[in-house]
Amino acid sequence: MPFQAPQGDLAILSGTANPLLAQHVATALGVSLTPCRAHIFSEGNVFVRIKENVRGKDAYIIQGCHFPVNDNFMELLFWIDALRRASAQNITAVIPFFSYAQGDKKDEPRVSIRARVCADAIEAAGADRVLTMDLHSPQIQGFFRVPVDHLYGRQVLAEHVRRLQIPDLVVCSPDVGFAKGAAAYANLLGTPVVIGNKQRTDHSETVEVLEVIGDVKDRNVLLVDDLTITGRSLIAMAETLKKRGARDVYAAVTHAVLSKGASERIAQSQIKSMFVTDTIENSFDPLPPNVQVVTVAPLFAEAIRSIHERTSISMLFPDGRPICP
Amino acid sequence: MPFQAPQGDLAILSGTANPLLAQHVATALGVSLTPCRAHIFSEGNVFVRIKENVRGKDAYIIQGCHFPVNDNFMELLFWIDALRRASAQNITAVIPFFSYAQGDKKDEPRVSIRARVCADAIEAAGADRVLTMDLHSPQIQGFFRVPVDHLYGRQVLAEHVRRLQIPDLVVCSPDVGFAKGAAAYANLLGTPVVIGNKQRTDHSETVEVLEVIGDVKDRNVLLVDDLTITGRSLIAMAETLKKRGARDVYAAVTHAVLSKGASERIAQSQIKSMFVTDTIENSFDPLPPNVQVVTVAPLFAEAIRSIHERTSISMLFPDGRPICP
Amino acid sequence: MPFQAPQGDLAILSGTANPLLAQHVATALGVSLTPCRAHIFSEGNVFVRIKENVRGKDAYIIQGCHFPVNDNFMELLFWIDALRRASAQNITAVIPFFSYAQGDKKDEPRVSIRARVCADAIEAAGADRVLTMDLHSPQIQGFFRVPVDHLYGRQVLAEHVRRLQIPDLVVCSPDVGFAKGAAAYANLLGTPVVIGNKQRTDHSETVEVLEVIGDVKDRNVLLVDDLTITGRSLIAMAETLKKRGARDVYAAVTHAVLSKGASERIAQSQIKSMFVTDTIENSFDPLPPNVQVVTVAPLFAEAIRSIHERTSISMLFPDGRPICP
Amino acid sequence: MPFQAPQGDLAILSGTANPLLAQHVATALGVSLTPCRAHIFSEGNVFVRIKENVRGKDAYIIQGCHFPVNDNFMELLFWIDALRRASAQNITAVIPFFSYAQGDKKDEPRVSIRARVCADAIEAAGADRVLTMDLHSPQIQGFFRVPVDHLYGRQVLAEHVRRLQIPDLVVCSPDVGFAKGAAAYANLLGTPVVIGNKQRTDHSETVEVLEVIGDVKDRNVLLVDDLTITGRSLIAMAETLKKRGARDVYAAVTHAVLSKGASERIAQSQIKSMFVTDTIENSFDPLPPNVQVVTVAPLFAEAIRSIHERTSISMLFPDGRPICP
Amino acid sequence: MPFQAPQGDLAILSGTANPLLAQHVATALGVSLTPCRAHIFSEGNVFVRIKENVRGKDAYIIQGCHFPVNDNFMELLFWIDALRRASAQNITAVIPFFSYAQGDKKDEPRVSIRARVCADAIEAAGADRVLTMDLHSPQIQGFFRVPVDHLYGRQVLAEHVRRLQIPDLVVCSPDVGFAKGAAAYANLLGTPVVIGNKQRTDHSETVEVLEVIGDVKDRNVLLVDDLTITGRSLIAMAETLKKRGARDVYAAVTHAVLSKGASERIAQSQIKSMFVTDTIENSFDPLPPNVQVVTVAPLFAEAIRSIHERTSISMLFPDGRPICP
Amino acid sequence: MPFQAPQGDLAILSGTANPLLAQHVATALGVSLTPCRAHIFSEGNVFVRIKENVRGKDAYIIQGCHFPVNDNFMELLFWIDALRRASAQNITAVIPFFSYAQGDKKDEPRVSIRARVCADAIEAAGADRVLTMDLHSPQIQGFFRVPVDHLYGRQVLAEHVRRLQIPDLVVCSPDVGFAKGAAAYANLLGTPVVIGNKQRTDHSETVEVLEVIGDVKDRNVLLVDDLTITGRSLIAMAETLKKRGARDVYAAVTHAVLSKGASERIAQSQIKSMFVTDTIENSFDPLPPNVQVVTVAPLFAEAIRSIHERTSISMLFPDGRPICP
Repeated sequence: MPFQAPQGDLAILSGTANPLLAQHVATALGVSLTPCRAHIFSEGNVFVRIKENVRGKDAYIIQGCHFPVNDNFMELLFWIDALRRASAQNITAVIPFFSYAQGDKKDEPRVSIRARVCADAIEAAGADRVLTMDLHSPQIQGFFRVPVDHLYGRQVLAEHVRRLQIPDLVVCSPDVGFAKGAAAYANLLGTPVVIGNKQRTDHSETVEVLEVIGDVKDRNVLLVDDLTITGRSLIAMAETLKKRGARDVYAAVTHAVLSKGASERIAQSQIKSMFVTDTIENSFDPLPPNVQVVTVAPLFAEAIRSIHERTSISMLFPDGRPICP
Repeated sequence: MPFQAPQGDLAILSGTANPLLAQHVATALGVSLTPCRAHIFSEGNVFVRIKENVRGKDAYIIQGCHFPVNDNFMELLFWIDALRRASAQNITAVIPFFSYAQGDKKDEPRVSIRARVCADAIEAAGADRVLTMDLHSPQIQGFFRVPVDHLYGRQVLAEHVRRLQIPDLVVCSPDVGFAKGAAAYANLLGTPVVIGNKQRTDHSETVEVLEVIGDVKDRNVLLVDDLTITGRSLIAMAETLKKRGARDVYAAVTHAVLSKGASERIAQSQIKSMFVTDTIENSFDPLPPNVQVVTVAPLFAEAIRSIHERTSISMLFPDGRPICP
Repeated sequence: MPFQAPQGDLAILSGTANPLLAQHVATALGVSLTPCRAHIFSEGNVFVRIKENVRGKDAYIIQGCHFPVNDNFMELLFWIDALRRASAQNITAVIPFFSYAQGDKKDEPRVSIRARVCADAIEAAGADRVLTMDLHSPQIQGFFRVPVDHLYGRQVLAEHVRRLQIPDLVVCSPDVGFAKGAAAYANLLGTPVVIGNKQRTDHSETVEVLEVIGDVKDRNVLLVDDLTITGRSLIAMAETLKKRGARDVYAAVTHAVLSKGASERIAQSQIKSMFVTDTIENSFDPLPPNVQVVTVAPLFAEAIRSIHERTSISMLFPDGRPICP
Repeated sequence: MPFQAPQGDLAILSGTANPLLAQHVATALGVSLTPCRAHIFSEGNVFVRIKENVRGKDAYIIQGCHFPVNDNFMELLFWIDALRRASAQNITAVIPFFSYAQGDKKDEPRVSIRARVCADAIEAAGADRVLTMDLHSPQIQGFFRVPVDHLYGRQVLAEHVRRLQIPDLVVCSPDVGFAKGAAAYANLLGTPVVIGNKQRTDHSETVEVLEVIGDVKDRNVLLVDDLTITGRSLIAMAETLKKRGARDVYAAVTHAVLSKGASERIAQSQIKSMFVTDTIENSFDPLPPNVQVVTVAPLFAEAIRSIHERTSISMLFPDGRPICP
Repeated sequence: MPFQAPQGDLAILSGTANPLLAQHVATALGVSLTPCRAHIFSEGNVFVRIKENVRGKDAYIIQGCHFPVNDNFMELLFWIDALRRASAQNITAVIPFFSYAQGDKKDEPRVSIRARVCADAIEAAGADRVLTMDLHSPQIQGFFRVPVDHLYGRQVLAEHVRRLQIPDLVVCSPDVGFAKGAAAYANLLGTPVVIGNKQRTDHSETVEVLEVIGDVKDRNVLLVDDLTITGRSLIAMAETLKKRGARDVYAAVTHAVLSKGASERIAQSQIKSMFVTDTIENSFDPLPPNVQVVTVAPLFAEAIRSIHERTSISMLFPDGRPICP
Repeated sequence: MPFQAPQGDLAILSGTANPLLAQHVATALGVSLTPCRAHIFSEGNVFVRIKENVRGKDAYIIQGCHFPVNDNFMELLFWIDALRRASAQNITAVIPFFSYAQGDKKDEPRVSIRARVCADAIEAAGADRVLTMDLHSPQIQGFFRVPVDHLYGRQVLAEHVRRLQIPDLVVCSPDVGFAKGAAAYANLLGTPVVIGNKQRTDHSETVEVLEVIGDVKDRNVLLVDDLTITGRSLIAMAETLKKRGARDVYAAVTHAVLSKGASERIAQSQIKSMFVTDTIENSFDPLPPNVQVVTVAPLFAEAIRSIHERTSISMLFPDGRPICP
């Protein structure tokens, strides 16, 4: 009776959002990308076509949903539908950065829970599974009925920082919302944690840091966050930390969205070095010299290999021990 | 026992795609637009918020899905979700131009039926009904499970042309695909119909007119189509018609998408006058002098009034007589 | 890592609608039909039973939905449900002729979009895929969420006509609605195309031909259509063509529905030869001598083989070149 | 705060299955039937059209699913879809006899649970509620997600029998499957119950009565059942009862399906009088003299009135007392 | 082309409801149970965790839904979800006793059809199939869209009784509701059948036997039922049978729910021997000496093996011959 | 055109979980509770029945999902189904405490996201809306497709604390997970915030406080949390705070689950006063003298009134200003 159930051949497709990451993932897996093509017509419609038979294949479409967010998202939907109608056996939406995860709750009257809208659209299009990294809140896995394999960028970034052997390090969350994530970083690095308590006054992305909860005097500080758009929160936090007597300030951020002007802002900030991953390719400006990119391609490749070969994905739970007796 | 079932108060909301049309519709209905706001953050995420209570209201969100198609489409999904979570009683998505209706079939291997993907996403977001105009094919109504009220732009455009009393008029479809629509125009205007048989060689929107089926010599010709993007098909057809001895060439087109350069191209073409509707606002360039806009706001207002007051929408079937005995 | 994903054993089942075609398909595939039985009880209920284990099999139920349309359709639903509850792995509904595809839009007030109702019922019953031929409009593929593999009868019929080497041939669509299909035929045969512009006055199927758009004088004409029920449209068109000076009139029609009296009517018409396929078996009367049947069994067999072996189905897109650059 | 929620105006539509019953129901409700029309085209397709505005109405489509079962069932689906797309507010499918309720379990390998297939199709088409009578098993209510209001024909038939004041009466179920229904009849009439234990050998509807469980000597017997198709089970049971010394044998059957030949068979049987309802109109032959029809139109009218006015439907539970303390 | 489609490795999981039965099933299949653990926290929440990789496996979670019914049911839902999110290929919910099957109809106003609510929740959680035994009514299979494999306890129990070679045996249903089940038992044992006609006065589970339909004088009687909770119905029936002159009274009951006090009650009753299965483990009190347990583990093991190896499950239809000609 | 859409009469039902709260809510609304009854049978099945007509009513079933969690949850599902099948117009599930909200993510391999399973079951049963308080994470609103109205207990508790005018107050979160909630409390009270950084070692609910981030010396401290089960986290935190020089320690906790022994533990702890709400009624032991209950009945009543009368629910967003410009 016992035998291993095979799945279809592996097919890795790259949308237009992460061509480099997709290439690195495919290389790490020892396969070629399945030829395919997306096109935006002059009226603004996205069109996608897969150029090779995928019937019965175990397909992974790598298409992050970062800037231009909506073009990338619609392209993702069409890839999924095209794969389904082309009779792929399993379709995994690989979304390195899922920008709308930021719209994960209804904290104002009469707004949309945009991450759920996107999750429903992805499932309606026909995805069988989602593979992603550092969702803005881990609860978003529950927005999907299909299984979500959720990777942690801090695995890679904390390892990178550990190797730097920075003395007297303390981890700092820029706000109370990321306190739990910061504690997880601190845990991995064996350091204390402090927490910024900023007051975000409106959606215009200007922030007002009010306090640092905890002591940073004469400490090197590692600011951590899941994403940065303008860089402003981190930069303002770095200034506050300096005022409170911190020595050097570093930052580790999974998703470097970096809207227009962010690069220059970061370059001129008090952040000595910022470590980011390659989940996002098209930043508006060249990265500044104090930003270093650590690749997550091996992590994604390993996850895809595990899914495809049906082995356990141990790297999904970097914090370790099972917590039920 | 008999009484009229009331619906909630009418709420008309305007997304960012058709502010002028929405304002005209609201004015025609004698109501104010419900205050609401959409915003695109610097990372590319769309955010929407309704600024007034809509609990129990009969809500109509006017948001066409033309350029920028994907931004407009995602905004529409979020409006629908926001209305649903804000407990509007009925939600009608009013989509003056639904650009992805062009992706209505699978005529190449391994492509997506994009109009169905969009229909599923609209329904997953929670729309109860759709009101639209001149879908690329009428079958797309069947892509939706929810009722679709489908208006015909030719009602307004043919009436406009009739008033011009152009002598010796013949209606011309630029290709076999619109032959049925052209016949309906000809029917309304009481003219013969001729048909261009072009060979569309690829998706790059260059066309090659092969022939005119039917006779146009010494005739004034009204080219008709549901939409024009670059204007090229119509312009090429106009040239062919001229070569075949046509007198003046006019055009009536519901959706004037008009991508970059189209305005100038049309201005310099052999088309004497082109009549278009106001389903699309943001064209890339100012409209050329030979294009006249005929508003469809009264038609949309009338349809919304009928839906809201639960009366019959006679204008949905301009071609007249019931066809079953 | 790379291996071919096997599917379950092939199981071909024949409902009561197309026993001959099903047998030919099975023979072409080199398999026996799976024993099964449908029965109509005296009260009118259809009952179906599969007589052999189909657990884990890749099942194809061949059951066209032609006359008696509703009995055949309900039988199809029950086959699908029986296969699903019997744990077949994949269920493909093979529908050589899908009669309700004619109800594909809402062109009158307060009617049903019957093709969508049928599509929903087929999916609710549990079909994983549909294989069909010459839907009344290609958009109906979008009525289904499951993949639809759509074969073209014109592939077989045009090839048949080509071999006859009829000189001075022109293709004629009997109405503007089939203009695009006629153009595709003309393309395959390298001929010009003309178009009948009839006015269908009501649903009673009497038609009134108004004009022929294009020139047929001294030409042999091939009338083409996706289906004919009474034959009246084609016969009337043939008369008009003759009056306009046409030489011989031929006809190529995929689905020969042929209601009571149609055979005799066609026999006595001006149509010299009519070429039809074997998608429909039970015509009311014997076929007249001027009708020739061309089998599509090899086409269906080839499509099933491709689906089962997960190879590309090139015959689905007979018109050739990919149209996206 | 407290007020009665109005629904839309009442609209009663009659399909082609129960025109007389529908007329009687409408008359009892004091309303006119909404003009509508169904047509079967010569190719076998059913077409339906509602001839009056039903937007916002509370619609009841009366369409039993008896012979021709499949034509009637498909017509029902299309009525529901037409009402939904015409924006009726609530759609109740009124199905006096639901023939496929007989297919309510999987008692053979690889068959369909046809009643569930039908329930899913009815819900997919868009019915909001079902009103029916004497389903073959009461569990079928659970096949539907939508509310089912289930009327009991025995209410009317038992009342009719009670008025006859037949002495020494005993109720007899023709088989163990209807034992519970027979006990309910006996309860209403205050009589003992006996049970036939027949062995149904196959689906060909020939039955073999093996025994009568209980004593019928010198008793008048009322055979009861939910439906009879050929009459054979009841007739054979009557013979057995006579052999066991029964005096007169009567029968009360809700749904008189009566296939070809059943009328004559019943006329010549030992059944003195058979009481049936008017849930089914088109029997193959005229009813025999020993069959009397008792109308259920007032019961359906009362149920519709209760649903429409949102009052409690007490007649749904004729057996009385709530059974939970 | 022909090959056998393999499924994933077999994984048998045991919830907390049937640990012994699960162990016996696994042993009979020659596999080890997949390590897993359920825990009830002090606030009452159930938590489940699978301790071994199940990606791509063919998983069977054995978890009956008997006392504590709701804890067991919720645990089942969480197992299914955990298996689905852990990417098991197929998930079969093995429910030896499904207590809520008793809530299978709406026989009082404004109650829930609880079995359908449970079926919907099981499907929403993600079960692909259900394997169960002796549902309170066979129609409940139709409450599920997914395939239900339904085993009959009477196969095992009737075989056990046959071996006892009890002379002059008659089968007795304790009420009209189980008359059909009793007839099936009688069929297997080749005996006559008699039927108790009790009047259940309310939900408090006190019953009032009114009569025995049929003759039991000087007969040994086998009472049969699908389940017994308090034992009271069977015990009262046994007394009545004795009064009617029966010799020894035996009982065969699939599901021995046996609430508090039932064991003692049965021990002191006139039932000589009661035969039950091991679908339920945790009875409140030790079983009395006159109750014998017959295991159904081999039956469940055989069914799982058939499902897994995709062979036909002949034991599902113990009553034999196909009933359609 | 403009008029207010009425809903059906208000019907408030109380399940067995929150009878006192339900009574207070009804009283605050000036209505009587709709008579209804839930019963647990001796075999463990829950049964529910509504004793009054609710057709067309706007129904609110108040049934928290605390201990016994699974019994309460299943009862809730059956209430919803009973209301739906009894044709209530709108069904709002009012869940004062939703215990399974704690299972909101997949932070271990192969576990269930139990809150999503519950959300799906609630929607499958037919709820149109959910009204709840202090979900363990606000993202859980996105687990539901139906609108969720989410009340904040801190509104009531913070107001209660403010009136006490405790000097030198600082708010303390017992862990990083509630840091954001604590900051919101601090915002309402105008105090600083400190954060405990405990290490939860396993699921057995023993915790290990590692540090206090921020300064508490000579401060009165208000510990805040959404729920407490054993009280251990808060008590341990209070001890740590005392060791760090805090003056008096208070606690404000919305949901006082209080499992066996928690009351005594809290009574003997260093917590001077604990303020809780009445979302949970049945604690295992009497509340200790240092726990005060603040009712949220007026808040729930106000929310229900707003939903019913379709006015805006301002109390849903206590933190004030809209955050989008």
